[in-house]
Amino acid sequence: MCSLEHCDPPRPLPNGGGVAEGRGEGSEVINCHGEHVEPCYPLAMPSQNSPEVDDLYKLRHSLAHVLAQAVMKLWPETQIAIGPPIDYGCYYDFQFANPISDEDFGAIEKEMRKIINQGQTFDVDVLTIEEAIAFWKERSQKFKVELIEDLAREGATEVTHYRNIDAKGDTAFTDLCRGGHVDNLKHIAADGFKLMTLAGAYWRGDEKRDQLTRIYVAAFPSKEELKDYLFMLEEAKRRDHRKLGKELDLFTFSELVGPGLPLWTPRGTLLRNQLDGYVWELRSAKGYQRVTIPHITKKDLYETSGHWQKFSEELFRINTREGHEFCMKPMNCPHHTQIYACQQRSYRDLPQRYAETTTCYRDEQTGELHGLSRVRAFTQDDAHVFCRQIQVKEEILKIWEIVDTFYATVGFGTLKVRLSLHDPNDFGKYLGTQDMWKKAEAALRQIAAERNADFFEASGEAAFYGPKVDFIAKDSIGREWQVATIQLDINMPERFNLFCMNEEGKEERIVMIHAAIMGSLERFLSIFIEHHAGLFPLWAAPSQVALVPVAAPHEMYAQEVEALLKAIGIRTEYMDPSESLGKRIREGEKQKINYLLVIGDKEVADRAVSARNVRTKNQVTVSLDEFVSAVRDDVANRRLQETIA
Amino acid sequence: MCSLEHCDPPRPLPNGGGVAEGRGEGSEVINCHGEHVEPCYPLAMPSQNSPEVDDLYKLRHSLAHVLAQAVMKLWPETQIAIGPPIDYGCYYDFQFANPISDEDFGAIEKEMRKIINQGQTFDVDVLTIEEAIAFWKERSQKFKVELIEDLAREGATEVTHYRNIDAKGDTAFTDLCRGGHVDNLKHIAADGFKLMTLAGAYWRGDEKRDQLTRIYVAAFPSKEELKDYLFMLEEAKRRDHRKLGKELDLFTFSELVGPGLPLWTPRGTLLRNQLDGYVWELRSAKGYQRVTIPHITKKDLYETSGHWQKFSEELFRINTREGHEFCMKPMNCPHHTQIYACQQRSYRDLPQRYAETTTCYRDEQTGELHGLSRVRAFTQDDAHVFCRQIQVKEEILKIWEIVDTFYATVGFGTLKVRLSLHDPNDFGKYLGTQDMWKKAEAALRQIAAERNADFFEASGEAAFYGPKVDFIAKDSIGREWQVATIQLDINMPERFNLFCMNEEGKEERIVMIHAAIMGSLERFLSIFIEHHAGLFPLWAAPSQVALVPVAAPHEMYAQEVEALLKAIGIRTEYMDPSESLGKRIREGEKQKINYLLVIGDKEVADRAVSARNVRTKNQVTVSLDEFVSAVRDDVANRRLQETIA
Repeated sequence: MCSLEHCDPPRPLPNGGGVAEGRGEGSEVINCHGEHVEPCYPLAMPSQNSPEVDDLYKLRHSLAHVLAQAVMKLWPETQIAIGPPIDYGCYYDFQFANPISDEDFGAIEKEMRKIINQGQTFDVDVLTIEEAIAFWKERSQKFKVELIEDLAREGATEVTHYRNIDAKGDTAFTDLCRGGHVDNLKHIAADGFKLMTLAGAYWRGDEKRDQLTRIYVAAFPSKEELKDYLFMLEEAKRRDHRKLGKELDLFTFSELVGPGLPLWTPRGTLLRNQLDGYVWELRSAKGYQRVTIPHITKKDLYETSGHWQKFSEELFRINTREGHEFCMKPMNCPHHTQIYACQQRSYRDLPQRYAETTTCYRDEQTGELHGLSRVRAFTQDDAHVFCRQIQVKEEILKIWEIVDTFYATVGFGTLKVRLSLHDPNDFGKYLGTQDMWKKAEAALRQIAAERNADFFEASGEAAFYGPKVDFIAKDSIGREWQVATIQLDINMPERFNLFCMNEEGKEERIVMIHAAIMGSLERFLSIFIEHHAGLFPLWAAPSQVALVPVAAPHEMYAQEVEALLKAIGIRTEYMDPSESLGKRIREGEKQKINYLLVIGDKEVADRAVSARNVRTKNQVTVSLDEFVSAVRDDVANRRLQETIA
Repeated sequence: MCSLEHCDPPRPLPNGGGVAEGRGEGSEVINCHGEHVEPCYPLAMPSQNSPEVDDLYKLRHSLAHVLAQAVMKLWPETQIAIGPPIDYGCYYDFQFANPISDEDFGAIEKEMRKIINQGQTFDVDVLTIEEAIAFWKERSQKFKVELIEDLAREGATEVTHYRNIDAKGDTAFTDLCRGGHVDNLKHIAADGFKLMTLAGAYWRGDEKRDQLTRIYVAAFPSKEELKDYLFMLEEAKRRDHRKLGKELDLFTFSELVGPGLPLWTPRGTLLRNQLDGYVWELRSAKGYQRVTIPHITKKDLYETSGHWQKFSEELFRINTREGHEFCMKPMNCPHHTQIYACQQRSYRDLPQRYAETTTCYRDEQTGELHGLSRVRAFTQDDAHVFCRQIQVKEEILKIWEIVDTFYATVGFGTLKVRLSLHDPNDFGKYLGTQDMWKKAEAALRQIAAERNADFFEASGEAAFYGPKVDFIAKDSIGREWQVATIQLDINMPERFNLFCMNEEGKEERIVMIHAAIMGSLERFLSIFIEHHAGLFPLWAAPSQVALVPVAAPHEMYAQEVEALLKAIGIRTEYMDPSESLGKRIREGEKQKINYLLVIGDKEVADRAVSARNVRTKNQVTVSLDEFVSAVRDDVANRRLQETIA
């Protein structure tokens, strides 16, 4: 899989790891084909394709005006910069004469409610550049002046100002704005918003320029929706994979190694390998074969593929001692083509299905890094199928089955599916013929229907080289994540001249299918850890069972039980017997070990165990045989929940 | 494992991939601690520690004088440069007035034999620098003049010349030389040497200077030994892993990806993974746990470890877009320390045993690359044990058992062992106390004795941070390879301040043990492929069984057999039935598939198979049940040879 979508971060939550300076909230992300793709946010609000988006956009955009108006009312000397809507509300950047703090939030919110309750409306003025500059110069608003000067430089001759009109018909506030507001501020629920955080932000993201104060606002159509969002935030905080990663000893970052470069401990590696091993098991059954490529390449490979220019900034570049230009791979597809191309392939050898779990590298900026969600080193469970056009449907079906099986097993139930199709009104930007596209898209639609998928179509969302299937998972606190995609590619085979010899002994151009199941393991694990709040399905858990003998006389039997479990591959912990029973149980719960086996007189006498299920908090006494057989069965069947207790 | 020994190449054989220019034959290799280590040559001759070395050295060194003398006799206008002994003979670099070719070898050999049979002796003259320069200027030998001028610059006031004295007492040839010759050339077997190849070589390895012609000579004490060596060379050529790698579709190199960066095909990856999986199985049983690290790091990690300066040239350096200095890891130990150090460890948590199969990168020069033997990307099956001093013996014993088991299973029988100890006369260069060293070395010696190892001790061969155990394997054509080492390290824990809390609640400095079993998988595979000449033990073979139905009526049963074998995990090939029986059998043999199952009327009728064992070339008919059970058993027990036929 080569799309950057697989390593994109969830947007840092406002009370999360700070704001990425130098990267606007709406800034674009470019995938490996140089296309702009949407970053994958946890979607706490309806997707971009829903009709509700416009109303929410207007609400949040209007609220930014309200925020600025309130601030100007309270501190008239303030310089105002920009204030766009964001996915959970809006923000506005200010330069205050004197610093404010979140202790001022109450006053600002009060002022905002007052403005909303006034039922202000919006009026628009069209001004020439000169008029607009004069307007803002008069008010000493230097940032607005600069924005307008830039617009003029880009060729604009006019700009629009939006004025808030109060009940008396007076202008309460004016802003430079392209529009998109509610008709009346009364349509904003006065109890549907909340000021969240203050953050530093440089003017225009340039650290050499003025430092501004950004105020983030959460905003929803109703009090209930705001409450749900705030609850989700609290839950997200509790489940934060960075916190759990440390508590459960899954991964670490080292000052010496550097930011964005996670090091996986034994427990974290085990978790990764369980998940990756499962993906491989599913793939192996579908005829995939593993391949192995290096993490670097000569520039030449990406000049041929076209990535050298398109990825430019994100490539970690290496100049060798002999003066050659190398770089670290930010994706795997071009390397895999070279394995396909190392010998002539007959149509009988196709499909060739290459799978590889391998680490890619991108030169992300430090400020954009976030836990495992956005890293500089991300490991993909990548696969590329090299096949004939007529084999595409069957191959996609196979991948789709793997995706569905995997996500159901790891606890995400049924995924939503987006069929990303071409834009029929702008066909010029795509490779291939209309006929080819129609057939390919029809095949996707048919597969989606055959699989009874919960799918919607998104015209114009295809890659330029072919249509895509994007899978969206909803986590246990309602956030949506784009997790897997299947992409049809008729571009790369062209660039690398990939073909097979067909039945007539002629060269036939092949197609490539890119497919990743987890995508970036790091990003997937951030989602997986938070989804399960660190209490993993038994088969995947780094520690599955803890032995808790009540006292010294029970240790011999406890050790026997441990040996028996270890012999069948169960990962056990023997809790330090010098600690009290209560403390060991609390420690086992904190470590989120699935079962705590309490062993006392009765258990020893009956060859039984008292199994405490940490998920349900139930405890039952069962025979050792029964416990062993249940655990073995749960693991073998990769059950989501433990059978016992 | 961090030693460069694991990625060092076998010396390219003289008729192999050409000579590495710019790298003298005796040039040194530096390990990850900045120490000079011996490159691992296939040792066709006695080891450096054997008493025979001196005689062989004298023989080969003397023969270089004979070669130069013969050349000067035939082409008196020739400029002579240098002529050292090498591990299978000697070479001499010349600048000829007119190019020669290997067609001239006969004449040179004839002249050399004539000189040997004259029974010339050596005489030595001590000359002042001025006298020596005058001597060579008079003879217009510019290279000798330059060598002497350099010696003078380094502080020499005198040099020695060795003269060959013929039967009449006349000087037949004079060379600038430090000595070390046979008493009489008659001690050189006139039929024990052979001129092998011509190669280009730059004067002083500098491509901006004169290009010289290097003549390689194979030289042994007897005709028989020369014959054995030449046979070994022929065998080595037949087994060359670069040739077999292509024929058996194991790995490939891409012009676009670049030299020294192998790409592993499905078959090659399977072979790698079989071997690596076996190492992991052995390690897992000894309590090792897998960890995962990125392939890059900030400079800071290597400044702390001390590698930044010592590795300097061999590091692939990366400058990030934010201007930070990163580099690709050339070894794993510093990264692994950061996992150990991510939390405070109690003595109860030790040993921590981290294992990881991960790729390292070194900026090797293009001319030094050789197949899989010397690459820019090499994958180590690396492990680091973090333990207390008192646990060292037990941990080394565990690794030693793994090494012995692994190498016996993969077909190298018993390994020779070198205990690399400190030099008691130069203790200043080592870290730690004499007592610590004595104990550590005594422990190694004791383990070696307990294991009945075929070991020898090499004083002064230790690393500066601790003693080592080096394992040497002999392949099926008699070449010796250093394959595994265990290294005790008291340096890295000091630099990274690694400790555990001991029983008294005090910080106790720990030690590290570095251990790799295969070392570099690439280098090991080059040895493994050549050792087995591509016909691997059944359990490791990418294709284990081929189905060869005699004619169409036998196909149904053949397919049933294939399905049965696949169901139990046997890797099968169904040979293209449109080809003739003979061609399919030849193809199966060429592909070195262990068993070819020929299926005709009788086999179908009896539910049997005619199993042709490609190794023994025997064919027997056995019941299908018997075949399945034998194959399953051979794989489960990782037998070296197949049971059937």
